[in-house]
Amino acid sequence: MSRIAYVNGRYLPHAAARVHIEDRGYQFADGVYEVIAVARGRLVDGEPHLDRLERSLRELRIAMPMTRAALAAAIAETVRRNRVVDGSVYLQLTRGVAPRDHAFPARAHTQLVMTAKRSKPHPRAWVEDGVKVVSVPDIRWARCDIKSVSLLPNVLAKQAAREAGAYEAWMVREDGTVSEGSSSNAWIVTGAGELVTRAAGEAILNGITRRAVISLAREEGLRLVERPFTLAEAKAAREAFVTSTSSFVMPVTQIDDAVVANGKAGSVSLALRRRYLAHLAAEAARA
Amino acid sequence: MSRIAYVNGRYLPHAAARVHIEDRGYQFADGVYEVIAVARGRLVDGEPHLDRLERSLRELRIAMPMTRAALAAAIAETVRRNRVVDGSVYLQLTRGVAPRDHAFPARAHTQLVMTAKRSKPHPRAWVEDGVKVVSVPDIRWARCDIKSVSLLPNVLAKQAAREAGAYEAWMVREDGTVSEGSSSNAWIVTGAGELVTRAAGEAILNGITRRAVISLAREEGLRLVERPFTLAEAKAAREAFVTSTSSFVMPVTQIDDAVVANGKAGSVSLALRRRYLAHLAAEAARA
Repeated sequence: MSRIAYVNGRYLPHAAARVHIEDRGYQFADGVYEVIAVARGRLVDGEPHLDRLERSLRELRIAMPMTRAALAAAIAETVRRNRVVDGSVYLQLTRGVAPRDHAFPARAHTQLVMTAKRSKPHPRAWVEDGVKVVSVPDIRWARCDIKSVSLLPNVLAKQAAREAGAYEAWMVREDGTVSEGSSSNAWIVTGAGELVTRAAGEAILNGITRRAVISLAREEGLRLVERPFTLAEAKAAREAFVTSTSSFVMPVTQIDDAVVANGKAGSVSLALRRRYLAHLAAEAARA
Repeated sequence: MSRIAYVNGRYLPHAAARVHIEDRGYQFADGVYEVIAVARGRLVDGEPHLDRLERSLRELRIAMPMTRAALAAAIAETVRRNRVVDGSVYLQLTRGVAPRDHAFPARAHTQLVMTAKRSKPHPRAWVEDGVKVVSVPDIRWARCDIKSVSLLPNVLAKQAAREAGAYEAWMVREDGTVSEGSSSNAWIVTGAGELVTRAAGEAILNGITRRAVISLAREEGLRLVERPFTLAEAKAAREAFVTSTSSFVMPVTQIDDAVVANGKAGSVSLALRRRYLAHLAAEAARA
């Protein structure tokens, strides 16, 4: 658990970390967030995360609350104060505090809250045997490329997964294609040996781990195709996996009632996971 | 402005009214709200609002934080402490405070925040000359019938209206039909004299004022049809108006660049507004 929270310039004990009831994040989901992995005390892919954060803010016309350098320093301090070695830091930025009115307030100061926590290693069984996903209809809004806190449909999807004893929920659009997981990107390896994940666009969040794995797949010499795939195609795939800041590369061996291939983590998934763990180690070793 | 806020059982000065940074309303938009009009110190249509609140909570499987009678008493006390004669009370209920995780927390206590404020009478010009609306694409999620705080698309729509000098934004679905406004329901009167508003369903919030106006329209002997209408149909309509808790019945005389009929508030709109004001007065006079 995060013990010290950053709240608009102050480092507060977690229990005392509060925001005003007219914070637009609370009343309108009018804000964005990032979750950045921490490895050996250092941010993993910090720059791409901050690039994406700035893009989300620009799309919603929310101002950066400080310079990027100052933000990076505050993130590092939040990690340090929580003594996080391996874990993650959570940033939430909202449009400000103002009397309730849907339209943007005339004057608003971007509010910034951060927490940091340690994480445990993934259970070996998840990695070796893979995890289960269930499919749910994708009922989200049209701008899933913005990392907003408007996450209620993701909450409902993850809860559906939890109740089905699954690790994640894959969201299926009206055309039968899988967009992504409730908090991860979705991948398959086809019978023809193609590595497939949906192309970036408004239907998905362009995951930072997704992008790192795309690079690693190229280094691995894999045939990568960015295109939508259907749920039926995924169930018949040779391999499946999810990527996210907290999952890294996590093999998927069951989709609803369908067992993927032989029910064991596939070789491509495991090779990419190994490469991603090496990437984490390299990020941790950076000056 | 609300001067005293109710926050989980305590009445606090507005500036000191805060929620925890891990309130799921703030992190996930995992909550619902209601805005109830107050007339002469009394709630307008309090029971239907509380019915709808309970429905929203049920749909999201969020528990009521107390009995309905206790909630009604707390609402009344919030109104009283803010000395609201004519105005509104705002209620927000969220799933609880818990370490950040998309799925529902195992143990969570519904959080309840309320504010109340006075409102000013609508400018006469709005009522007589009507207001302008602009059209925007409806990019929201598939469960607009739940009155959730997942309002980011509504925020963006209302801001688009504000920047176009308009009162409201009407959201247009891919099939060309108008779903509703960013914070109101949409109505037209056709050339054939039919009063048209979209039927309740997952595409719109079933407004309490919308329902009251349906009853009043029947009393007025109007031919009411609940069906979708297109933006083109609205621009060619004889009259248009919006309904909401804060707008009551507000005539619309411009839709994008199209002037509706002769550009003055129509007779059906004004008759329904008069009836609605009488309804407010009747609610205010209730024992």
